[in-house]
Order: sequence, then structure tokens, then C-alpha cells
Amino acid sequence: MNNNALWNVTLSSGQHAVIFYALAVAGLALAAFAVRQLTTMHEISVRYRPAAIAGTCVAVVAFLSYIVLVLKFDAGYTQTVDRWTAASNAFLSWAPRYFDWTVTVPLLVVELIAVSSIVGAQAAKYRAIGISLAAGMIITGFIGGVAIDEGTNLAALWIWGAISGLCMVGLYVMFVFMLLHARRDLARSSALQPFQFAITLLIVIWFAYPAVFAFQGFDVTAGTYTTAQVLLSVADIIAKIGFGALIHKVAKLRTAEDVAAGIDTGHDGPVWINGQRATGPQNGRRS
Amino acid sequence: MNNNALWNVTLSSGQHAVIFYALAVAGLALAAFAVRQLTTMHEISVRYRPAAIAGTCVAVVAFLSYIVLVLKFDAGYTQTVDRWTAASNAFLSWAPRYFDWTVTVPLLVVELIAVSSIVGAQAAKYRAIGISLAAGMIITGFIGGVAIDEGTNLAALWIWGAISGLCMVGLYVMFVFMLLHARRDLARSSALQPFQFAITLLIVIWFAYPAVFAFQGFDVTAGTYTTAQVLLSVADIIAKIGFGALIHKVAKLRTAEDVAAGIDTGHDGPVWINGQRATGPQNGRRS
Amino acid sequence: MNNNALWNVTLSSGQHAVIFYALAVAGLALAAFAVRQLTTMHEISVRYRPAAIAGTCVAVVAFLSYIVLVLKFDAGYTQTVDRWTAASNAFLSWAPRYFDWTVTVPLLVVELIAVSSIVGAQAAKYRAIGISLAAGMIITGFIGGVAIDEGTNLAALWIWGAISGLCMVGLYVMFVFMLLHARRDLARSSALQPFQFAITLLIVIWFAYPAVFAFQGFDVTAGTYTTAQVLLSVADIIAKIGFGALIHKVAKLRTAEDVAAGIDTGHDGPVWINGQRATGPQNGRRS
Amino acid sequence: MNNNALWNVTLSSGQHAVIFYALAVAGLALAAFAVRQLTTMHEISVRYRPAAIAGTCVAVVAFLSYIVLVLKFDAGYTQTVDRWTAASNAFLSWAPRYFDWTVTVPLLVVELIAVSSIVGAQAAKYRAIGISLAAGMIITGFIGGVAIDEGTNLAALWIWGAISGLCMVGLYVMFVFMLLHARRDLARSSALQPFQFAITLLIVIWFAYPAVFAFQGFDVTAGTYTTAQVLLSVADIIAKIGFGALIHKVAKLRTAEDVAAGIDTGHDGPVWINGQRATGPQNGRRS
Amino acid sequence: MNNNALWNVTLSSGQHAVIFYALAVAGLALAAFAVRQLTTMHEISVRYRPAAIAGTCVAVVAFLSYIVLVLKFDAGYTQTVDRWTAASNAFLSWAPRYFDWTVTVPLLVVELIAVSSIVGAQAAKYRAIGISLAAGMIITGFIGGVAIDEGTNLAALWIWGAISGLCMVGLYVMFVFMLLHARRDLARSSALQPFQFAITLLIVIWFAYPAVFAFQGFDVTAGTYTTAQVLLSVADIIAKIGFGALIHKVAKLRTAEDVAAGIDTGHDGPVWINGQRATGPQNGRRS
Repeated sequence: MNNNALWNVTLSSGQHAVIFYALAVAGLALAAFAVRQLTTMHEISVRYRPAAIAGTCVAVVAFLSYIVLVLKFDAGYTQTVDRWTAASNAFLSWAPRYFDWTVTVPLLVVELIAVSSIVGAQAAKYRAIGISLAAGMIITGFIGGVAIDEGTNLAALWIWGAISGLCMVGLYVMFVFMLLHARRDLARSSALQPFQFAITLLIVIWFAYPAVFAFQGFDVTAGTYTTAQVLLSVADIIAKIGFGALIHKVAKLRTAEDVAAGIDTGHDGPVWINGQRATGPQNGRRS
Repeated sequence: MNNNALWNVTLSSGQHAVIFYALAVAGLALAAFAVRQLTTMHEISVRYRPAAIAGTCVAVVAFLSYIVLVLKFDAGYTQTVDRWTAASNAFLSWAPRYFDWTVTVPLLVVELIAVSSIVGAQAAKYRAIGISLAAGMIITGFIGGVAIDEGTNLAALWIWGAISGLCMVGLYVMFVFMLLHARRDLARSSALQPFQFAITLLIVIWFAYPAVFAFQGFDVTAGTYTTAQVLLSVADIIAKIGFGALIHKVAKLRTAEDVAAGIDTGHDGPVWINGQRATGPQNGRRS
Repeated sequence: MNNNALWNVTLSSGQHAVIFYALAVAGLALAAFAVRQLTTMHEISVRYRPAAIAGTCVAVVAFLSYIVLVLKFDAGYTQTVDRWTAASNAFLSWAPRYFDWTVTVPLLVVELIAVSSIVGAQAAKYRAIGISLAAGMIITGFIGGVAIDEGTNLAALWIWGAISGLCMVGLYVMFVFMLLHARRDLARSSALQPFQFAITLLIVIWFAYPAVFAFQGFDVTAGTYTTAQVLLSVADIIAKIGFGALIHKVAKLRTAEDVAAGIDTGHDGPVWINGQRATGPQNGRRS
Repeated sequence: MNNNALWNVTLSSGQHAVIFYALAVAGLALAAFAVRQLTTMHEISVRYRPAAIAGTCVAVVAFLSYIVLVLKFDAGYTQTVDRWTAASNAFLSWAPRYFDWTVTVPLLVVELIAVSSIVGAQAAKYRAIGISLAAGMIITGFIGGVAIDEGTNLAALWIWGAISGLCMVGLYVMFVFMLLHARRDLARSSALQPFQFAITLLIVIWFAYPAVFAFQGFDVTAGTYTTAQVLLSVADIIAKIGFGALIHKVAKLRTAEDVAAGIDTGHDGPVWINGQRATGPQNGRRS
Repeated sequence: MNNNALWNVTLSSGQHAVIFYALAVAGLALAAFAVRQLTTMHEISVRYRPAAIAGTCVAVVAFLSYIVLVLKFDAGYTQTVDRWTAASNAFLSWAPRYFDWTVTVPLLVVELIAVSSIVGAQAAKYRAIGISLAAGMIITGFIGGVAIDEGTNLAALWIWGAISGLCMVGLYVMFVFMLLHARRDLARSSALQPFQFAITLLIVIWFAYPAVFAFQGFDVTAGTYTTAQVLLSVADIIAKIGFGALIHKVAKLRTAEDVAAGIDTGHDGPVWINGQRATGPQNGRRS
């Protein structure tokens, strides 16, 4: 068993500044992304709108969670000459990440399915399984990494971490299935490339989370904690904002293609990306 | 009489973390649901819009209430070595549940009636009775469970609890009537199944509330309090978000059917669910 | 002269809980009503929209005011064994009611006129007089009930209270005039009944306010204060939400009748109430 | 030099209550006005929309500023028996007025120009000059009245006050020019009267500000401070809400006249004021 | 090495007031600009909408950041007779500027590209490079100016400052390229002039930031800190609001020209600027 919880460290002035920076920048970036999601929602047809809404919810929930992280990191470490030592609030400069993920990771899965080529009852099934696996992944992670002895009980850490990892594997399998489906169903769509990129991005960046989780299994220092906070802030920016922007692009391209194909998705008006009409002049003729 | 109010307990570090987790996750999930309700409202015709609005109000009010729960749970327990002992604020890590329910339970009844097959004067009557029973159920519960001797007066607990229970029975009877009505009036509607599911869900999950209320009649320990907080957070997620999502689906399906039947509900544009048009190509022809 | 301001009392645990409950429930109900007003505004034509907007402002302002009431009641009484004694903040668990009323009572008058049968220059005159009387009623009440010696100066209490009462009489006279106008002009309208009900409701429930004001003229106890807080919270719910819902119904019915009569109020789409089209199939033909 | 800054006074209980009342009521009234501006914006054509937007910004900025005023007045005076003495925060129960005015006074000028008969390059010139004069008026006032020795340096007070006054004269000259323009260009418009009234109102009510500024040049007492706070709160209500409502009416009337004259301002739907169609049945025929 | 971090100074009463003023005014101005951006967004076609959205995000993020600056400046300096001395919170009256810039400077680049004549894949490339350079410029600035020894390590200050400066040069080169592109592609557009002005403004005002950064390389006094805070507040107002208003005008003019040229950008309704139709009567004929 470790002597210290991950957040029970004494930070140097520089480490304190860097963590504050990482948390605040991620929070502000999420605020900006929430605004962007809300103001572009109408550019996506109601068919793919659930993806845009899920992405908005992700941004709002994560923003709220980063507000708590920032406030509690501010209150949780008190200055003594040139050091910052952990107070009882320090616990809440870390745990809110799990509060956030419990809601946002299932929503990321919803976001992905909503622009995939899986529809109808099959989509409902994928969604149910995906939400369950995602919630299970985070809840078990929280039990081992925070709830039991503040993550210092190594046996609990590894056992619950392993269960969490199994859920992650299940999600990865689902992602691969969705990728194969998309390759078949969207073979001629311009949306295939960003869709593939979105899934790949998720698969790669999600490795950051178990890596940081494993930090707790070794000697915890101020450096470990600083690295963990910065790494997860960056991972959250990529997995929520970068991924969300890709999904948004997929949804816009598919909206344009539906309009061009004459599928009534209730969307009126042309689709513009990067200052150009999407999919050329043959689409949007009805508007 | 018990010696302690339910919230006057000393929590272990793990219990403290688990309660914080349950409260925060429920709060964030309600925030996400409020965003979803607001951004999908226009997909439901004005005929069933009151259901969507009531569901939005439920999400907003419960979110506000969970903010208070989280803040007061944070302030209400102070760390002493590895224990968290209740301060005078602890009362407000529990009572806001009743503040929330007094407003949201009547709104859940409104939500249900608005998508049911009961209309006109009869709907107004059902709504008046339902709101009264719901408000009565919570107010009497608050009197016995919190106001009188902080819920430690067993006689008051059981007497007011019994009155509260009678209101609950009245609501259950009303739900069954609505179910029978729906079976007759919506027999050929695709909305019948999710409507039945929504009522069943409410009937089942609501049992959690009197069960937790009864906890106060027995020896209160930190474990009791932890179980109560987690159980009610989960019950709130299911009864507000899960139920609300089902009602939302009922409203969308009925909107699509109205459009297909040529009933003017002022709705334009097609209805899409799970990436597919609702009720096939015969509907939405006017859009 | 009384020894104590109304809020300088020592509350039992139960009284403290009941007041907290009344304040919080009124606040949450007003939040829900604000959401409902904002999401239904487009269902009312621009002709009667000022009523919907005034009602929304009432809900928002009263909600803000109840936030202050709750926060200051929370901070204004400190626990000592099983009692809660008033601190210097206690003043602000009462005075914000007057802040709120100074803005909302004039708005309630605006709300009423906007759906009445009084239009044009006459409406402007009624509005000017009504706003003046309403503002005068509250300002004078504040002077006698709070500002002078914290409401403990009985001479000031009764003199300013009497002036306030005269303004109230003036408003009641105006309400009766509006009622008579409506009976003549809206004799065949389905909106007459809810309009009459709305005025009657206001006339009856407003008696609660001078009654509570008069409490201060007698011996003030913890019981008086508790009764006053609960009574005014209930009165606010009825006078703001109940009244507002009735005005909303009047506005919807009149909108539907305008559409049916071919009056161009810029409203498109049918009007639905309780799951039924308002005023039968003859209206809304243009949509 | 005065001994005391304006806000370094000891208030009686009544004075404390009256200032709190004035600040809170102005804040709540501004909140209500912000809601009204946002919900009526679409009733004004894009041609005059900048006026509605500027008015909304005024309401939002002033509301934020009054929140600070209320919070800092609450924190800035501490109760000792029946007196309230200034703490170090008291400075912020006064200075935020200047923060607010620096942004809102230029916006009031923008609001006025946007509904005036001055257009194109000339409007841009008027706006640039007006914004400069308005900003100059407040910045110099802040330097003399707050920044230098907390407004107690009489030489600085009068010199900077005089410069501020010169800017005010410049603005008044501009207002008179706009009035003359309007009399010529809008001679037959129903909007002329409220436009003239709006300018007159501004010219009259603005005298309150230098008057209160001059208070600081004489003996400062608790009475002076109370009078200043109440007077400026009332002046803010009139200059922001009363003026804004008049500008709003001008914009609506001009919108209706544009529609009637066949000028394409992208506005659809009729304009209703006081329950009547604006400018008679001949307008709005296109809708 | 300096003895003091930039923010570890003792301020006179006047300096304290002036900094408070600068921070609060910038914050309120950004709030007003956010409202203006949100309420005018629909006046810009979806083609140039990304510019309006980026500008809105800039305003919201900077507003949030100024809230923190104001709160932490308020809490970070404590009054002692007529001086204000830095407390441990003082760090956060400066560092949030970097939090803000990390998000907003990349967004300013996005804003500029979105109304430029660069489109399609080239726009995507410019955006990727521009965002990278902008983020790099701020992150390296934060490392040298805050994170390492609180900006008192001169070697680190100059080295990281130099890297930051290189990124800035890269951005300036990009701006010049965009200018040349615009001169060729938009030669006959009325949008060219404000576009050129916007780029020029950015190039000029951005010099304020490295200048203030260099302050830290010399003796730091209360005067240095006050100058730095005021200068950066003014620079932020110009670079965010002034620049944003120019971009907004470019977007409106280009929208009007697209409509006139018959390019379908989904925009309906005329474009009005300064009370006049944009680009004369030949445009907007379709509306």
C-alpha cells in the first residue's frame, strides 16, 4: 500500500502553476466548445442531431466538472513560503474527473453511434451495450482508484482496474465493429474518412486514462501528480473537443449527402464547410 | 426515538467519497438531460409539448437541488484524520431532496398526462388530482421524515409516512387508470409500448423512496446513510432521466403519427428516431 | 414599540426546517415556472406577448429574490444545540421580499392589462396608474415594515401601512373596472372565465400580504415569523405561478380566437390546450 | 481635502436598509428589463435591431454591476449594535457604478443613434464621436471621484470633474443635433414624439450624475452617502430602463412604418402596440 | 533574477482602484460583446458563420477569465491603512490572462481565416498552422513568464520569450499572406477595406503583449504592475472587441455580396448596416 493518495503531495510553485494552467485551459476550451456546439446545432439535420446534442452535453458536463476541479485545486493547496501543501479539499481536485467521465463517456459512445451507419433496433442495442460498458468502466475505476483507501490499496487498485480494463476492451471491440460497418455502408461517402479518424483518435487517446490510473500503483510524487493532471487535461481536450469536432464534420457531410440524395431530413439550406459548399452543386438544389 | 438524525453520522473516507460521487454524478446527468430536453423540444409538436416542458422543468429543478446537495454535503462534513463528522450544515445534504420532489413529482405527473390518451376536461381533472396527491405525498413525508425532531420521532415518522403512502397509492391507482385508457385509445399506436414501459418504470422505481424513508425507523448508521444517498441518487436518475427519455419517445412517436394522420399540430418536418424515419414513408408527406 | 424585529427570533429545529422548506420550494417552483414561460412564449401571438413576457420577468425576478432569501436564511441563523439564533444577516431573510415585490407587483398589473380588453391609449393610462399604485404600495410598506426601526416602530408601521393599503384599494378598484370591461367586451369569448378567475384569485390572495404585515404590530414570536414566512411563500406561489398560468391560458385562448376571426396577429400554427385544438375546427384554418 | 471617502461612513440601521433596497430593486428591475429586451428583439426589424441589442447589453452589464454593488455593500458594512460601519470592501459598494457606466453610457449613445434619422457614414461618425465623449466623461469622472485619494482631493475632484462635464456638454450638443435631424426627417412619423421624449429624458436625468459627483466636494455624512446611492439607483432605472423602453417603442413604430412603406427590412408579421396594430390596417399587408 | 514576481507588489490606494477599474471594465465590455455576438449571429450567412462563432467563443472565454481576474485581484490584495499588499492569491490576478489567451488567440486566427478569401483544403492548412503557432506562442510565454520561478528567472524569461516571439513572427507572416490573398481575391469587394483594417489592427495591438512580457525583465515596481494590467486590459478590448467588430462587418458585407451574386448561402432577408441596405438595391432581390 502506498502511503499517500495521489493528491496528498506538496507541490513546488512551478508545479502548482502548471496544474492550474492545465485545468483552467481545459475548462475554458470546453466552454468555447459548448458555445460552438450550441450555435452550430441547426446546421446538422435532425437525423444526426442526437450526435450534436450528445456532444453539447459532453461539453457542458465537462465544463461544470472543470469548474469544480479548478475551485477545489485552488482551495485544496495552501501556500507555505514557496511550497503548496495539500489540505482536506485536495481530494476534490482529482475525484471530479470521475464524476464527469461517468456521464460523458457514455455520451461519447452515443455521439459516435448517432453518426455511424448503424440504425434502428441495432443502434438501440449498440447504445445500450455501449452505455453500460462505458459506465461500468468508470464506476469500477472510481472504486479502485479513489473510493477504496483513496486509491492507495494496491490490491483493490489492480483488481478493479482490471475489471475497468475489460469494459474498455469491450468498447474497443464495439468501435471496431462500427468501423467495419461504416467501411461497408459509407464506402462512397466523404464522411467515411473523418469517421474513421474519429474512432482512431478515440482508441489512441483513451490509452492515456489507464496509463494515468496505473501511476497510482507506483511511488507517488509531486511530479507524478503534476504529470497526471496535465496528461488528463490534454486527453480530455482531445477526446472531447477534437473528437467532437470530427463527429460534427461527419454529421455535416452526411447531412449534405442526404440533401443531395433527396432524403427528407427536414434540413433546409446549403451546407458550407471551410468557405465552400459541401459535395458540390448537385446537392441542396431544393433550398 | 432514535438518537440521531439520519445525517448525523460519522463517515469513513470511502463512504464520503461514494456519497460525493453519487450526488455529483446524478447532478451532472441531470444537467446533461436538461440540455437534451431544451435542444430537442422543437422535435415534438405543440400538442405534446407540455410533456417536454414539464420534463425540462424537472431536470432544471432537480439539477439546482443537486447543486445544493453537493455544496452542503461538501460543507457539512469535516475531516478528522480519516473520518468525516457531521457539522450543522449536514441537515442540508439531505433535506433538499424534499425541496426538489415537492416541485418535480407533480411535474412528472403532468409529463405523463400530457402524452397520455386523456384529453380536455378529463385531463385537467386528472392533472389537478395528480398534482394534489403528489404534493401531499412529499409534504407529509417531509413533516414526518425531517421537520419533526429531524425524523427521529418514530411515532411522527410512521404516522406521516402512512399518510404519504396513501397519497402514493392514490397516484398508483391513477397510473393504472391511465394505462387502461392508453391500452384502449392507443391500441394501434407504436407509442403504446414505451408509454406502458414509462408507467411501469415509475411504479417500480418509486418503491425506493418509501423504502429509504423507512430506514429512518431503524438504527441509523453511516452505512444506512450511505446506502440511502446512493439509492436515492440512482432512483432520481431513473425516475427523472430514464422516465423522461421514454416520455420523450412517446411524444415523438405520437407527433409522427399525427403528421401521418393529417392532424394539424403545427409540426413541420419529418420525425427521425435512431437514424430512421418514424412510422415509414407514409407519414410526413406534407413536409 | 416591539422589542424585536420580526426576524430577530430564536427558531426551533422544526421551525427552521419548515421555513427552509417553504423558501426553497417557492424558489424552485418559480425556476420551473420561468422555464415554462420561456418555452411556451411562441405559442402566444405578439398581440398578447407582453403578458407572457411580464410573467417571465416576474418568475425570473422572484427566483433571484428567493435565491437571496434562501442563502441569507441559511447564513442568518446559527445552530446552538437544538436552537437557531438570529445573526446580523437575518434581516436579509425577510427584506428581499420587498425588493422582489417592488419589481414584480407592477409587472403583475402589466400582465393583467396585456390580456384584458383594454387597449390603446386607455391601456397605457391604466398601465401608468397601475404601476404607480403598485410601486407605491410596496415602497410605503417597506418604509413602515422594515426601514424605520426594523418595523418595530408601531406608529410608523400603522401610518405607512395605511398609505400602502390605500394604494391597494386603488388597485382593487382598477381590477374591478377591468373585470367590468372584460364582461362587456369578451362576453362571448372562452377567455372570459379564466380572466375573471385570474382577477378573483389576485384579489383574494393579496389579502395575505397586509395580514402578514399586521403581524408585526403584535407580539413577535418564532411562531409568528415561521407562519409569516410560510404564508408569504405560499401566497407568492399562488399570486405569481397560479395567476401567471391563468393569464397564460387567457392569452392562448385569445390567440386562437384571433386566428379564427382572421385577425392578423402574426401567429401561425394551431393552438392546442389539454391535448385538444382550442375553439374547435373553425379556427386556425389558415395554417 | 475631506477626511473621508464618500463610502467611509457609519450608517444607521434605516439608512443601511434603504441603500440595500435601492441597490437591489435597481438590480432586479434591470434583470427584468434584460429579459424583456431579449424576448422582444425579433419584433424589431434588423434595420433598428442595433438599438435593441445595445439596450440589451446595457441591461446585462448594469445588472452584473448591480450584483457586485449589492454583494459588496452587504460585505462592506459590518453591524455593531445598531450601526453599520465601513470595512475595506466598502469602496466596492460605490466604484462599480463607474465600471458599469464606462460600458453602458457609450452603449446608450449607440442605442439612440440606431433609431435616429442619421444613417450611413454620418451615423458612423456620430457613433465614433459619441462613444469617445461618453467614455471620456466616465473615465475622467472616475479619476477625480474615486482614483485620486478616494475622491477626497478637492482640487483633483473639481479639475477632472470639469473635464468630465465638458464631455457631457459635447454629448448634449450631439443630442440636440440629432433632435433637429429627427424633426426634419421624421416629421410625419409617429416615432418622432417618443424619440423626442427619449432625448429629453436623457438630458434631464443625466443632471443627477454630476450633482451626486459634486456631493463629494462638500462635507460627507451618512446622509449624503444614502442620498447619493438612492438617487443614482433611481437615475439608473430611468436612464436605462425608461429610456430603453422609449427607444424600443421608436424602433417598433419605425419598423411598422417601413413595412407599410414597402421598405424591405426583412421583417415579417404585423406590429402590435398596446393590443392594437401599429399605424392602422394599411401596413403589414404583405404578411 | 528579480526579487519579486510581477504581482508581488504593494499598491497605493489609487493604483489599486485603477487596476480594479481596468479589469472590471474589460470584463463588462466583453460581456456586452458576447451578447452582441449572440444576438447578431443570424445576420451572417452560414458561409461566414464560423467567424461569428469563434468571435462569440472569444468573448465568452475572455469574460470568464476576467471574472477570475477580478475576483482574485479582489481577494489577492489586503488593505493595511492606505496600502494594499499582495497575498498568496495575487498570482491569480495575473496568470488567468494566459489561461484565456491559450484558448482565445487560436480562436482569433480561426475568426480571421473564416472571413478571408482562403477556402477549402488551404483554409484547413492555414487553420492548423495558425492554431499551432498561436497555442505555442502562449504556452511558451506562460512557461517563461509565470511557471518558472514566477517569471523572476531572467534566463528562462528571455529564452522562452524568444521562442514565443518566433511563433508570433510566424503568425505575422501568415497574416501578410492572407492580406495579399485578400487584395487579389477581394479586390472589388467592399469587404476588403475592413478586412485590411482588421489585420493591421491585430498586427499593431499585439505588440503590447511582448512589451508587457519584457517588463518582467527589469525592476518590477507597483507602477510596472499597474501599467501592465491597464495596458493589457486595453489591448484585450481592442484585440478582441475592436477586431471582432471589424470581422463582423466583413462577414456582413460578404454575406450581402453573396446574396447579390446569387450564391446560395442559405441567407434570407436583407443586410442592413448603419441604417442603410448593404451594397445597394441590386442585392437581396430574392428576399
